[in-house]
Amino acid sequence: MINYPIKRKAQQKVTNYANLGMTLESDIESSNLYYLNAGIAVIHKKPTPIQVVSVSYPARNKAKITEAYYKTPSTTDFNGIYQGLYIDFDAKETNSKTSMPLKNVHDHQISHLKGVVKQGGIAFLIVHFKAYNEYFILPASVLFSFWDNKEEEKGRKSIPYEAFKSEAYQIPFGYQPRLDYLKIIAQNLNAFLKNPR
Amino acid sequence: MINYPIKRKAQQKVTNYANLGMTLESDIESSNLYYLNAGIAVIHKKPTPIQVVSVSYPARNKAKITEAYYKTPSTTDFNGIYQGLYIDFDAKETNSKTSMPLKNVHDHQISHLKGVVKQGGIAFLIVHFKAYNEYFILPASVLFSFWDNKEEEKGRKSIPYEAFKSEAYQIPFGYQPRLDYLKIIAQNLNAFLKNPR
Repeated sequence: MINYPIKRKAQQKVTNYANLGMTLESDIESSNLYYLNAGIAVIHKKPTPIQVVSVSYPARNKAKITEAYYKTPSTTDFNGIYQGLYIDFDAKETNSKTSMPLKNVHDHQISHLKGVVKQGGIAFLIVHFKAYNEYFILPASVLFSFWDNKEEEKGRKSIPYEAFKSEAYQIPFGYQPRLDYLKIIAQNLNAFLKNPR
Repeated sequence: MINYPIKRKAQQKVTNYANLGMTLESDIESSNLYYLNAGIAVIHKKPTPIQVVSVSYPARNKAKITEAYYKTPSTTDFNGIYQGLYIDFDAKETNSKTSMPLKNVHDHQISHLKGVVKQGGIAFLIVHFKAYNEYFILPASVLFSFWDNKEEEKGRKSIPYEAFKSEAYQIPFGYQPRLDYLKIIAQNLNAFLKNPR
């Protein structure tokens, strides 16, 4: 595939086409598959945790789960390794034009991401503003600063869109990979490290 | 909990008691919980991948899965971060007194572990010889050397117990954590690094 410069209008057309029926999660998964096949990184989505209650065996060697329930995940959805760096993140989508509500993020995800940062990992959210079809990498440190103030009287219950423009990193939507988030991280590595190099 | 020196005999007694009804997987999970609470590492077991076919909604907000099947995992069971190092491993148990059969390991796990090593991660198996109640950390490099020869005419289809004694690292069974595998890795770090320090 040849990567050639295209005009803004043409790019939007490609973006819309590629986006038909796609979700943020599948765009990230297809980017991860590209990274894996190209030997760039090994990053996977974790399976959804499910509590199995009953299993039947209608055929030999084939267990059929007949009663089960979704469990709340205790970590984020994605993790792996990129050139020696531990990568850990979650993906969030919002329809809002003005902010990402913090109710989209769970307590256990914040404590997980804080633990990861403490251990020297690269932790962040990938946030999709659907109204603008814009994708951002929000470093965990920026997320924490909004989160830790949200219980104060004047604290925000959301992260404003302007904060994404000034403190997050936009990921251009592409063809292969669709969301080249590791390239953006490599270009801004110090924003993601506990001890900047 | 106070960590005090105990005699070998007393320790064995504790070991046997602690082991009642425990599996290798739960021993590892309880060790990981200890590491997490002590701020030593953030390592989790991935959920078992399940393909959901049908879901019903008998009550508001409560999805009940009524038909689902277990899927083959595409990676290993455990991963996370330990002081900046990406950690990735699987747990295997064997009843054999002489070797660990390589049929316990899947192709996709080998290719996953090879990808992890290439990216500079720490990859290994934790193997439990139930006949001796001994636990070993087998570095991925040793696993690969047996795996890559197994299709040759005289190639082994298993890794002999003696190879564990000489090329793997034994993990003493303890109280808290039960299996202090990170301590053993820290003591022998160069055996696990692509580029020894």
